[in-house]
Amino acid sequence: MAVEDAPKVSYQELYETLLSVLRKKGFAPGRAELCAKMFADASRDGVASHGLNRFPRFIEMIAIGVIDIEAQPVPVARAGALERWDGRRGPGNLNAWQSMDAAIALSRQHGIACVALSNTNHWMRGGTYGWQAADAGVIGICWTNTLANLPPWGADEARVGNNPLVVGIPRGEAPVVLDMAMSQFSFGALESYRRRNQPLPVVGGYDPSGELTRDAAAIEATRRPLPIGYWKGSGLAMVLDMMAAVLSGGLSTHEISRDPLHETKLSQIFVALDPASLGAGGADVIDRIVTDLHAPVSGGGQPPKYPGERTLETRRRHIAEGIPVDPEIWRRVQEL
Amino acid sequence: MAVEDAPKVSYQELYETLLSVLRKKGFAPGRAELCAKMFADASRDGVASHGLNRFPRFIEMIAIGVIDIEAQPVPVARAGALERWDGRRGPGNLNAWQSMDAAIALSRQHGIACVALSNTNHWMRGGTYGWQAADAGVIGICWTNTLANLPPWGADEARVGNNPLVVGIPRGEAPVVLDMAMSQFSFGALESYRRRNQPLPVVGGYDPSGELTRDAAAIEATRRPLPIGYWKGSGLAMVLDMMAAVLSGGLSTHEISRDPLHETKLSQIFVALDPASLGAGGADVIDRIVTDLHAPVSGGGQPPKYPGERTLETRRRHIAEGIPVDPEIWRRVQEL
Repeated sequence: MAVEDAPKVSYQELYETLLSVLRKKGFAPGRAELCAKMFADASRDGVASHGLNRFPRFIEMIAIGVIDIEAQPVPVARAGALERWDGRRGPGNLNAWQSMDAAIALSRQHGIACVALSNTNHWMRGGTYGWQAADAGVIGICWTNTLANLPPWGADEARVGNNPLVVGIPRGEAPVVLDMAMSQFSFGALESYRRRNQPLPVVGGYDPSGELTRDAAAIEATRRPLPIGYWKGSGLAMVLDMMAAVLSGGLSTHEISRDPLHETKLSQIFVALDPASLGAGGADVIDRIVTDLHAPVSGGGQPPKYPGERTLETRRRHIAEGIPVDPEIWRRVQEL
Repeated sequence: MAVEDAPKVSYQELYETLLSVLRKKGFAPGRAELCAKMFADASRDGVASHGLNRFPRFIEMIAIGVIDIEAQPVPVARAGALERWDGRRGPGNLNAWQSMDAAIALSRQHGIACVALSNTNHWMRGGTYGWQAADAGVIGICWTNTLANLPPWGADEARVGNNPLVVGIPRGEAPVVLDMAMSQFSFGALESYRRRNQPLPVVGGYDPSGELTRDAAAIEATRRPLPIGYWKGSGLAMVLDMMAAVLSGGLSTHEISRDPLHETKLSQIFVALDPASLGAGGADVIDRIVTDLHAPVSGGGQPPKYPGERTLETRRRHIAEGIPVDPEIWRRVQEL
């Protein structure tokens, strides 16, 4: 089914449905609202893969005891502007939100701050914490490790994670937010292309004969997606994992279960930088960069976009017209 | 001429030749030694493009007044662990070294620290400052903006810089150091492939008919190299430039002269994180990750390498066997 034909629900209906499930599962007041909001916001912003569509698995991981809904992260070591927290296997999005919140508060004291979080769960949509920092008027840089899902350059089996990296830069109502995994396409994206019978826009991995291909199904078969920039994204994925494990004292990708339902005890880094502490605003600087980026291109095509620009367009459309939902997943969530 | 046939010089001879030129041009004692060392180290580590081969242009930019050899960077704003420095158009490598040095010292007080440097010059080999941090036992993350040399995704003309990003992670004598620009291949790399009449190992940009190509000469002709990961590296290049300009108060890529001889007033970020401040060592964590990475691969090929691994191999070989030099450039430098 094409997205245009999908049934649509209002933001309010989506949020309240998720909230009601979380309350039923035992989430405390306050925590249920924030958790539901983060899932609903992801679908509202066009990231259903880590919004509504991910919600059933989140609930399943609670049911099997991987996620402890009552656990809250606690600081376990401090050194000025650098803190190490233990996520105690609490809900990944609540843990991440609280960690970025702590980093933001610390950055207002120290100019820059970092919270390194161990023992946490999948943070769902990484962009959430970039928007969180930018909305608070600070620059946020955060990343997570993941289970091994990406062959590093030179290997044909997964030994690194796709370790998403997020950067949020404040700019009033229209911040710049980059949210990128180190694989060119996620397995979720590959599945979407396969279902639509579309070739990938660029090569995304290897086919069974070891050739680079734009055939999503072939890459799903080999489990050999490409890192962005070949050896470069492979190297960046490695150092993100190393820094997360060293600073948090938690697990590295190679120590994390490869069973997606038991992908837990992740390590994450949350850095906040407060430009206002230097007396700098910054929105005017970003405005000038965006103006230059948006200058007409030769040939009359669409000018380039900055990271997060399309998100804001999608958000506005979904708020006005409703959020498209996968009817099968929507039915399942309503029955949870 | 193939690299194997290039004449070789000892590290000492290379260093002393560069040092003698710098002293002749008026560099102060101490500064001349450090500057010569950074250029010589780059060639020793296999990065001649930003070592010996870049030295003549560096001297030329001094001669035309773009680089002020007497200028030293000064702090202009402070907020705890975040400082803003003015590079006063001093030599880029000396400015960058001093900035990372200040960030390292600050990180020992605050756990994490950042120096944002404006008004500086090309830092030559970015990896230098990753090694500097790692050798000091701290994690270093730094990046620079550049003149516009990369078309962002969706445009056919350069509007972003290739903005190299560097990460150094301490691990005794064998740290992990990533040094990557946001273009898949630099123009220097394209030139090398063209001269050797070799196709690029992967597509690196567009040919005159707008198709992706592995033909280096075609990409040199269109000036349309590819960002790593297409839209992803394009977005990452944008946010690196934005953060550098906002935090340093200096210029953004679109404000920097497009004349390579006048590529100046760059903005750079130097972040240091001190794991020891949390009581963490970290080298054992990295050792375990590297051991996993180095496990044999199916088919019996070479296992993947970590960033910086090949650098150390090259360094050892060059120290033992001499550093290959381009005879024409070597002759010119000796005559400077």
